[in-house]
Amino acid sequence: MTPIGFWFDFASPYGYLMAERIDALAAEHGRTVRWCPMLLFAVLRQLEMPAPMAHAAKRDYMLLDFERSARHLGLPYRHPSRFPVVSPLPGRMFHVLAERDEAAAVVFARAALRAAFRDDQALDDAGFVGTLAARCDTGAARDAGTLLQAAQGDAARAALARGIDEAIGQQVFGSPFVQIDGEPFFGADRLPQIEARLAGRLAPAPVPTRAPNPAPTPKE
Amino acid sequence: MTPIGFWFDFASPYGYLMAERIDALAAEHGRTVRWCPMLLFAVLRQLEMPAPMAHAAKRDYMLLDFERSARHLGLPYRHPSRFPVVSPLPGRMFHVLAERDEAAAVVFARAALRAAFRDDQALDDAGFVGTLAARCDTGAARDAGTLLQAAQGDAARAALARGIDEAIGQQVFGSPFVQIDGEPFFGADRLPQIEARLAGRLAPAPVPTRAPNPAPTPKE
Repeated sequence: MTPIGFWFDFASPYGYLMAERIDALAAEHGRTVRWCPMLLFAVLRQLEMPAPMAHAAKRDYMLLDFERSARHLGLPYRHPSRFPVVSPLPGRMFHVLAERDEAAAVVFARAALRAAFRDDQALDDAGFVGTLAARCDTGAARDAGTLLQAAQGDAARAALARGIDEAIGQQVFGSPFVQIDGEPFFGADRLPQIEARLAGRLAPAPVPTRAPNPAPTPKE
Repeated sequence: MTPIGFWFDFASPYGYLMAERIDALAAEHGRTVRWCPMLLFAVLRQLEMPAPMAHAAKRDYMLLDFERSARHLGLPYRHPSRFPVVSPLPGRMFHVLAERDEAAAVVFARAALRAAFRDDQALDDAGFVGTLAARCDTGAARDAGTLLQAAQGDAARAALARGIDEAIGQQVFGSPFVQIDGEPFFGADRLPQIEARLAGRLAPAPVPTRAPNPAPTPKE
């Protein structure tokens, strides 16, 4: 079976909530998950959509709802003192780790999201991100400096850009965004539907056939 | 205790879903509901926000999600063949009925939403709306023509306009929108949180104190 697609931005509070649940939920139903970091602002710009918190009324609501939604799921949440979170560095570091070991990249992603949304840790702090990545790196066990150098390199930038292009092609207009056999689920609040869908209690929705997505722009 | 506020647009599929659940949920916890129809496009225009389906990627998603979300809640759903639904007439008719009997207006609202989202009935069809309203009218038991005349009158227009002004003042940026003791819940997908909140399993969220809302513009 195709892995479940899990799209997220390291800057996304709701992405953190989904990251805490999706792997266990998939495993319960014999499925695997492909983690796909992206930069939501870049995707939305291409889709000509406003940022989720661009408007005051919705921003006020979301600031209340992040914490409440975490509480409802039984998860700790501390709103970052610097918000929005700056997320290109962890997005590129994910790919540095994933190139050798995808599982290590997922461990890093989960830890980075917790650092941002539980521990008020800035994700544009290179020292922090390098040290965290070194703790997660397996096999080669590179040190923080080596990993950071790779995260600033062309290959890591291109890998994140490819993820963004793929997100645009798949109309991934928010974070988190989950795809189960082509069926899209937007938002941490779709967890009950995702669970019902995986358990076979909710039949697949008819996914409209679209014109084929344009091929991602080559970046390397 | 203050009634739970339930804001909705008669044009809103997710509003229909909430309308099917909110009264029973409130009653289970000894609460009442105040139904507040509004015209979402007018509220969003004032809040300088785009319409929910203004962007293609989100529109495609919502067209899939309306039906799926209904199915997940065990509710029938048939997407209206004319969409978006045109909703000023039922919004005004609600107030014609509510002026004499609020319960009758709620019965009408639930029936009109079912007509739109189960039976593909246009809500700008005056004959249909008048007949439905006459079936719901109590006490005076006015006929369809009398009710329609009232719905086109100044008092009904002003009542709906006041509802819109109140929605703007309360930052009601979507449909459905539920307020429990000042705490906002946006979307039919907040039903699990609303249930937990009413059952005391979810503590009230700290509602930010805002500058007092501007007084609604007098319309009569």
